[in-house]
Amino acid sequence: MVDFEKLRKKSIELAKKTIRESISEDNFIINSINNIDELTKVANVLTKRLRDWYSLYLPEFSKKISDNEAFVKLIVSRKRKELMQEMNIKESMGTELSAKDLKPIMEIALRINSLYKLKENLKEYLEQVMNSYCKNLSTITGALLGAKLLEQAGSLKKLAMMPSSTVQLLGAEKALFRHLKTGARPPKHGTILQHPLVSSAKKTNRGRYSRVLADKITIAVKTDYFKGKFIGDKLKTELEERLK
Amino acid sequence: MVDFEKLRKKSIELAKKTIRESISEDNFIINSINNIDELTKVANVLTKRLRDWYSLYLPEFSKKISDNEAFVKLIVSRKRKELMQEMNIKESMGTELSAKDLKPIMEIALRINSLYKLKENLKEYLEQVMNSYCKNLSTITGALLGAKLLEQAGSLKKLAMMPSSTVQLLGAEKALFRHLKTGARPPKHGTILQHPLVSSAKKTNRGRYSRVLADKITIAVKTDYFKGKFIGDKLKTELEERLK
Repeated sequence: MVDFEKLRKKSIELAKKTIRESISEDNFIINSINNIDELTKVANVLTKRLRDWYSLYLPEFSKKISDNEAFVKLIVSRKRKELMQEMNIKESMGTELSAKDLKPIMEIALRINSLYKLKENLKEYLEQVMNSYCKNLSTITGALLGAKLLEQAGSLKKLAMMPSSTVQLLGAEKALFRHLKTGARPPKHGTILQHPLVSSAKKTNRGRYSRVLADKITIAVKTDYFKGKFIGDKLKTELEERLK
Repeated sequence: MVDFEKLRKKSIELAKKTIRESISEDNFIINSINNIDELTKVANVLTKRLRDWYSLYLPEFSKKISDNEAFVKLIVSRKRKELMQEMNIKESMGTELSAKDLKPIMEIALRINSLYKLKENLKEYLEQVMNSYCKNLSTITGALLGAKLLEQAGSLKKLAMMPSSTVQLLGAEKALFRHLKTGARPPKHGTILQHPLVSSAKKTNRGRYSRVLADKITIAVKTDYFKGKFIGDKLKTELEERLK
């Protein structure tokens, strides 16, 4: 008679092994890009609160620096007087705070600053993984956008199996289905709009540019997935030629 | 003739001075409590992402520890093997990660951990300020809930001017106006539900308990605002007697 108990155990073992071995660069990339996005959001939310609080101390400064990262860096590295001099603020509506009341503000600023640093480290790590795993894709789109596309597709394999028209509209699913359902105008681009070649183009050109870019991305990804040679440089030059 | 230019300058100077002098403990308290709330949210969001990522490494562990703060602390302080022993995990479905791939995960965990520490520091600061600014209130409600009420009222002065029925419903504005508009059942408590005496009470008692608590809070706040003596202890004992 068949020993079902034994068979069951073996099957579970095998399943566990398969799961263990299925963890690949895809997972690292998707987790990195998700964390980078989350950190960006989180740092912005916290900086907004920091601005509120810091405004008791030096309200004029918050208005002069609109970039959040620069704002945090400056208040971490400089004292109130130095900031006033640099920003040409003669008289402030803010109060001098006692060391005790200033401490929590500076602590928050330091932590936010270290979140920005963490984001940079994660970006570096992502670039490394992307360059060893899908160098062609990463050359054309840059690590961030490439990772974003990979995340939306689910894996490199899935992305490689997609036709270029799907790649073009990844991230624009809502607009696409609205188009299919109600006959509204179809979307011209999804996430790849973030590519500098597309986002810097004139609005009337963006649809065409996205199509061309998606073509090249598709070729690059297929080459990566089937372990082809490095043709990223060539593809990039072609792309830039065509979109001149 | 009146020198209007000079008058105008004087007025602006005076206005700036008034603004400068209007910054008080109210502002510190409101900013602290807002930042504490924000940090709680942010740390939870980031921990969720961390759990996703860490699950590649040791998926069984994430399920065993549901508390986010404890989860982060444990993976920061212990190695994979130690965790497996402690949690009695014999075999994991996760992969051994190379040092390179583990580093970003641990970095995120460290930063989240330091956000939790920051939250503790802010809480300490808040307690200090509350104890010197409105000790009666803080004795009855604790620093966090007291600060929350102060934030919702806008300042200690405004909170001191409120009748106890308003204090009882602070934070339940939506339900209150729904009641007034549609005749739905009126809310019995707002933010003060967070007080352990109310939240641990039976559901049928909560309305009455909130009313009694709001009474005592009102007395405490008025005493704080008009620089009365410290009667927090007495009020607290009375409260506990009545809600026995």
